[in-house]
Amino acid sequence: MTRSTAPGKVYLFGEHAVVYGEPAVPCAIERRATVSVERRSDDRLRVEAADLTIDGFAVEYGAGGTDGPEIDVSDGLVSAATAYVDEAIAQARDAAGEDAGFDVLIESEIPLGGGLGSSAAVVVATIDAATRELGHELDRAELAERAFRTEYEVQDGQASRADTFCVTSGGAVRVEGDDCRRIEAPDLPLVVGFDGGAGETGELVAGVGALREEYGFASDTVGAIGDLVREGEAALADGNIEEVGRLMDFNHGLLSALGVSARSLDSMVWAAREAGALGAKLTGAGGGGSIVALDHMEEVETALELTPACEEVFRAELAEEGVRR
Amino acid sequence: MTRSTAPGKVYLFGEHAVVYGEPAVPCAIERRATVSVERRSDDRLRVEAADLTIDGFAVEYGAGGTDGPEIDVSDGLVSAATAYVDEAIAQARDAAGEDAGFDVLIESEIPLGGGLGSSAAVVVATIDAATRELGHELDRAELAERAFRTEYEVQDGQASRADTFCVTSGGAVRVEGDDCRRIEAPDLPLVVGFDGGAGETGELVAGVGALREEYGFASDTVGAIGDLVREGEAALADGNIEEVGRLMDFNHGLLSALGVSARSLDSMVWAAREAGALGAKLTGAGGGGSIVALDHMEEVETALELTPACEEVFRAELAEEGVRR
Repeated sequence: MTRSTAPGKVYLFGEHAVVYGEPAVPCAIERRATVSVERRSDDRLRVEAADLTIDGFAVEYGAGGTDGPEIDVSDGLVSAATAYVDEAIAQARDAAGEDAGFDVLIESEIPLGGGLGSSAAVVVATIDAATRELGHELDRAELAERAFRTEYEVQDGQASRADTFCVTSGGAVRVEGDDCRRIEAPDLPLVVGFDGGAGETGELVAGVGALREEYGFASDTVGAIGDLVREGEAALADGNIEEVGRLMDFNHGLLSALGVSARSLDSMVWAAREAGALGAKLTGAGGGGSIVALDHMEEVETALELTPACEEVFRAELAEEGVRR
Repeated sequence: MTRSTAPGKVYLFGEHAVVYGEPAVPCAIERRATVSVERRSDDRLRVEAADLTIDGFAVEYGAGGTDGPEIDVSDGLVSAATAYVDEAIAQARDAAGEDAGFDVLIESEIPLGGGLGSSAAVVVATIDAATRELGHELDRAELAERAFRTEYEVQDGQASRADTFCVTSGGAVRVEGDDCRRIEAPDLPLVVGFDGGAGETGELVAGVGALREEYGFASDTVGAIGDLVREGEAALADGNIEEVGRLMDFNHGLLSALGVSARSLDSMVWAAREAGALGAKLTGAGGGGSIVALDHMEEVETALELTPACEEVFRAELAEEGVRR
């Protein structure tokens, strides 16, 4: 039996603008998906995902792949979850040059569908564990590449390299187009609040695109996010956490202007700020999902717990280590 | 006895950015301050302001000017309120060339200190009524000029021509620097929500200035507001209310990015949007105070009434007429 874990991620800066060639800074967080794989004597695949949740639904299934899952939730949710594992296993088989069968157990601390990189973490950990179970070891670059290809396949070509690179490498990452690299960052005391839902990423991205095409000032707003990200990189390199917080606040406002915030996200952001957070913003596509706040104090967690819109709160330091064996 | 009324105002677009030479569009609303003046046989001033409220405090005073007010609230609040009336009467005396005394009665439907132009309305109506009581009639241009000078004096040089011009002329107004002019606008079904408080205008303006000086993207955000205002003017001229609403939403996000929104304002804005408003934004300096929503339906008023942060809600059509005799 071989086990790998990979962290989730938040965006410190730059989501949405990254679609238009601006830089963005995702950051791995110390909440992990753990995938254990064991080679089978046959070539079949059995996937168990005891605590994988999608939009608040528990998905429990015994047999994936050719057998079809044994579950009592909608096929759509299950096929979304199994599709990542199936494709990740296909990548591992391809890397090892063997059509082996596996028992796969997924345990995740990352809410699925909350914009926190849960699918990237599961994919990276699955590929890493399955290739090692077959006696091969991928370096991080190839692992990130195969994880990206997995997401690209499953998401019909709508994938960014950012998530899979970030959870593979760990730390804070700078993404600009296809260029991804780790950047310096201090310890970041992060708190995540999750509203239990998720926005429609495709619609949100399209909405920003429409605004950007119609209005010059919307295009300028996207450009302002890019400039803000560059300031954010400098603040991270300087270890200036107060400034990182101020920039997160500003970034949230620009995302709100672009129409991707939500009442739940704004109420969590304000709860965190009023409890003393250095900064707070939505993370990911928006429209619902998660916020990330920067703070050293317990008060922010408590304030989020007391926010009706907030379903789950957790503290998550920056994860220096990405995929871990 | 002579009576004048003047409307309050909201900003449809452009507050804060107007400080840096960008255009802005304030708009008179059909909620009025009414000032009745009667010449006295002596040269003294008696001001009665039965329903003038500042930040939720009722200010009732019997004698202003040299006698000092008879009241039971803090002197600071009263002197703030009386200062406008005293200076407005001084302008009227100057215009008429007579040091007459007056009994002044102020009745206002506009919450004071909520960013809704209450002081401008009281000043304009007071100057207009008092000069007419002395047998003079000021044209709107001179009235607006004298009202501006009044605010300029009372606010130690920190006054904009926008408020006094807008409540004098009525309608939607375009302001850019010292240039103020009426612009075309359709009937606008506006709803105002007031949180009962007010931000510190000076601090908020200084905060935007500091951001703008520190970050190029903050300066670009101010510029984006200016470009948005120009689109807003076109949308008003076209009578495209849906677009006016979309632009109000965007404007609110840019103001949030500049750090001048507040939890109460965001919660009112979201309540209005989710109830079906075409758009909603904070109006005025922000940090607390009022929001304005664009909508045809009763649901928005109801939703605001049910919002804990909201202390007062009223519907206020665009006021075509400014000062009225």
